[in-house]
Amino acid sequence: MLSDTEIARLARPRPIEALAGSLGLSPDEFEPYGRDKAKVGLSLARQPHGRLVLVTATSGTPAGSGKTTVSVALADGLARLGQRAALALREPSLGPCFGMKGGATGGGYAQVVPSTSINLHFTGDFHAITSANNLLAALVDNARHHGAVSLKQVLWRRVLDVNDRALRQMVSGLGGPANGVPAETGFDITAASEIMAALCLADGEADLRARLDRLLLGVRADGRPYTCAELGATGALMALLVDAQKPNLVQTLEGTPAFVHGGPFANIAHGCNSLAATRAALACADWAVTEAGFGSDLGAEKFFNIKCRQAKLAPAACVLVTSLKALRWHGGVELSDAGHGNADALSQGLANLGRHLDNLFAFGQRVVVALNRFAGDEDDEIALVRGYAQEKGARFAVCEGYAKGGEGAVELAQAVMDAASSAPAAPAYSYPLDAPLEEKLGALCRRVYRGAGVELSARARADLAQLKAFGCEQLPVCVAKTPFSFSHDAKLRGAPEGFVLPIERLYANAGAGFVVAMAGSVLRMPGLPRQPQAFAIDVSGGEVSGLP
Amino acid sequence: MLSDTEIARLARPRPIEALAGSLGLSPDEFEPYGRDKAKVGLSLARQPHGRLVLVTATSGTPAGSGKTTVSVALADGLARLGQRAALALREPSLGPCFGMKGGATGGGYAQVVPSTSINLHFTGDFHAITSANNLLAALVDNARHHGAVSLKQVLWRRVLDVNDRALRQMVSGLGGPANGVPAETGFDITAASEIMAALCLADGEADLRARLDRLLLGVRADGRPYTCAELGATGALMALLVDAQKPNLVQTLEGTPAFVHGGPFANIAHGCNSLAATRAALACADWAVTEAGFGSDLGAEKFFNIKCRQAKLAPAACVLVTSLKALRWHGGVELSDAGHGNADALSQGLANLGRHLDNLFAFGQRVVVALNRFAGDEDDEIALVRGYAQEKGARFAVCEGYAKGGEGAVELAQAVMDAASSAPAAPAYSYPLDAPLEEKLGALCRRVYRGAGVELSARARADLAQLKAFGCEQLPVCVAKTPFSFSHDAKLRGAPEGFVLPIERLYANAGAGFVVAMAGSVLRMPGLPRQPQAFAIDVSGGEVSGLP
Repeated sequence: MLSDTEIARLARPRPIEALAGSLGLSPDEFEPYGRDKAKVGLSLARQPHGRLVLVTATSGTPAGSGKTTVSVALADGLARLGQRAALALREPSLGPCFGMKGGATGGGYAQVVPSTSINLHFTGDFHAITSANNLLAALVDNARHHGAVSLKQVLWRRVLDVNDRALRQMVSGLGGPANGVPAETGFDITAASEIMAALCLADGEADLRARLDRLLLGVRADGRPYTCAELGATGALMALLVDAQKPNLVQTLEGTPAFVHGGPFANIAHGCNSLAATRAALACADWAVTEAGFGSDLGAEKFFNIKCRQAKLAPAACVLVTSLKALRWHGGVELSDAGHGNADALSQGLANLGRHLDNLFAFGQRVVVALNRFAGDEDDEIALVRGYAQEKGARFAVCEGYAKGGEGAVELAQAVMDAASSAPAAPAYSYPLDAPLEEKLGALCRRVYRGAGVELSARARADLAQLKAFGCEQLPVCVAKTPFSFSHDAKLRGAPEGFVLPIERLYANAGAGFVVAMAGSVLRMPGLPRQPQAFAIDVSGGEVSGLP
Repeated sequence: MLSDTEIARLARPRPIEALAGSLGLSPDEFEPYGRDKAKVGLSLARQPHGRLVLVTATSGTPAGSGKTTVSVALADGLARLGQRAALALREPSLGPCFGMKGGATGGGYAQVVPSTSINLHFTGDFHAITSANNLLAALVDNARHHGAVSLKQVLWRRVLDVNDRALRQMVSGLGGPANGVPAETGFDITAASEIMAALCLADGEADLRARLDRLLLGVRADGRPYTCAELGATGALMALLVDAQKPNLVQTLEGTPAFVHGGPFANIAHGCNSLAATRAALACADWAVTEAGFGSDLGAEKFFNIKCRQAKLAPAACVLVTSLKALRWHGGVELSDAGHGNADALSQGLANLGRHLDNLFAFGQRVVVALNRFAGDEDDEIALVRGYAQEKGARFAVCEGYAKGGEGAVELAQAVMDAASSAPAAPAYSYPLDAPLEEKLGALCRRVYRGAGVELSARARADLAQLKAFGCEQLPVCVAKTPFSFSHDAKLRGAPEGFVLPIERLYANAGAGFVVAMAGSVLRMPGLPRQPQAFAIDVSGGEVSGLP
């Protein structure tokens, strides 16, 4: 089989004008970026009518489960069944493409194109967020330098879209008073910027402005918070984000429209594409297929409790992606052994699938399990999963989108249509917004992770007191934890129970609109491996090779 | 009169397809970015035929002289005379737009549009350079972290396109061995990245690759240089720069095509738009109007000795922009007093004009002095300048492009056509490339700045020894000094003589292809003022206001 890049290069995507025209967009509703990308106007999102399908996955493995590939194939499969379908997906972070992560445009014959461009600068959204985030940091430091404000603590960090461990922790402002105020600070990767999360959850220009106004920048000498509104920086940030707010329109290899927009982390942020992209897909198609990062305990949980609740979205069906390899790994074998038949390990690993199903049912969802089929997967093992899923009350379909594109997802598409035949209802949330923060965390731990409870560190208790003083108690919570386990401990695979979730820190993301709870340490700035992917990347005659 | 932003907003630019079509570009020779911007293919630059006109200026003032405004008006003026004209201009840096610098798209009725978009993210070139520069920094640090190379000195710094004094000097890599190797380092502004200079001087993909290969990243334990080629990062950087290499096509308010591309500093770099943009303008028009930063002693000197020499360009004429205000300031009055009539100060200041004329004559150029007329400028003072310029052997024209657009530059356009009537010859360079570096510096000081000579600090002498060991002696020199004086001392206005130019440091920019000589301290990362422009910027209904 050809490589992803080779397949993408053979694609002959429709001209962007034709694609936009097929969605009924008039020329003043989109702006072309090159011949195969466009930005669409925010007004597009005003009249959503389609049915929403959320794609999530069982717990992660270090190799990934192919959630985007299944999402793309599902949309193409719906199209093959004569349905008007569109995708709403996250856009990839540039930095990790030079490290070791795969791209974020699907794989095989289920890809979004132009994949190289999407994985590199795309339409510049990440760069705009980097610019806005760092202008804000410079303005805060500048206000301190000129004595316009006195802060006992600066809360705002800088970001860059590069994997650079040396920037995690630093002392800036050295070299004398002309260079500002010395400070312990650091850089996160751009996907971790609170502005990314705020932009993705914003419901139009006015809402984005209100979110930026609320960004917490520091703590004044008297303990009161210092916000972006008080600094006066919101207008400048809005100017930097004028285009970045607008969803990007591209297409799958089979010509299905895809709104690829926004890419917040799925641990320290909510992990879904922008609300604007979701609404654009709902406005342009009868079926909007979207995904949320990691499993039902991370991206999907936040999709329901944060995004759906705020935006009044009600998915018509959920797809739970899994693979034999992932289930075997969660059944206890090493990753290197998980790629070939092992019915014992698979049976053990089904507990992981089961708990994700229970979670999705608890959210009130109708679920289709999509087994992402890899070469060498055997029919009897697949039958084992099918039987388990159906016994639990879910639909089941094998997805061969990687090898066959939309044709490999027709069974899945039909199952999704069957599951979504009745009118969708609002999800059942895991906690009410007006509960105290500890109770929200406890509810997530017991109902979603199935642990015994949470334990706040002394530092987290101090954070909590500050959060209450800042008036952030009514916000939903966004737990940052490992994607490899329901617990905080990546080694506890399968369906662990009885653990106590340690909360090390609590951060108020008042602009994004949630409180981040750190369950263990989550890196906000990745590093590069010994042999980074960068060394395999090259260009010849304007054509890029070696990108993941 | 309307503000620049109001005028630009009233513009009805030709659709980018029509503009590209008028230049004879086929659809596969350009890619639209929105409705009013495009990237053009590098192949466009292959068949230049037009005549090149360089716009430079007398010595700077803290208020600027309006060089871009005159350039834009000149191109529009040529068009009004029935000529096919195009512009090749630098693209602005995003950072300073939020500080206090004006935009870089001209002013009044002589603007390049869409000015707001050009002054913000434009087509993402600066962001691509930021990404490439910082990926390279991360890869160097990563190689050290993993023990792949041992360096006694790291030469590569990071960049951001924001005015942020706190990033000038810092200690990175703190927090333990997982965060890399602690290092004293810092950020420059993106315009100061050597990759910016390399991209602007590159003559096609292969030449850019060769320049990136040569980037000096550090010094090995045994004193040998460590380059980008040895690290193996060139291919990844090329991938990040695939689109950034291509010139951007926009237009003036009057519909004259403008290739706005590349923006290196005019002190620590050579200060001209990309060679690709210059060649594109020469390929598409009979007259290509370009500018070089600051005065004949900075941008123009580097334009001749570095860019023209390397690319075998021969300007047909030079325009020397000046203003009564600038000349009065150089005649000794304070800036606040320089805006109104003062014949004594003006007479004194003519010495500055005279020396710039002598310089341009020494470069073998035919010169038109363009007096950028401001409201309130009196005819008798203008006549004084006209008489002086003509007596020195230059042509003279008043330019009223700010108030009248191309109509206000018809006299200037005619004077340029007259000056450029004979065949252009290669410029007379100030020094031969094979002279020792001290001699090149001495020649610039005596022939262009008209000082007594140069004096290298002990540190610069050590740098020189290293440059020789690195084999960089054959490169041209790029002097970083104040634009406000022919000397290194901003207080020495007019036409100072007899000073000794102190060279504090010498840096090998082997990728850009020159040696930077620091005459005094030049900030590579600006700071923000007490009341930054950012606070005046806002957005309403997707429309940005308050940008300079």
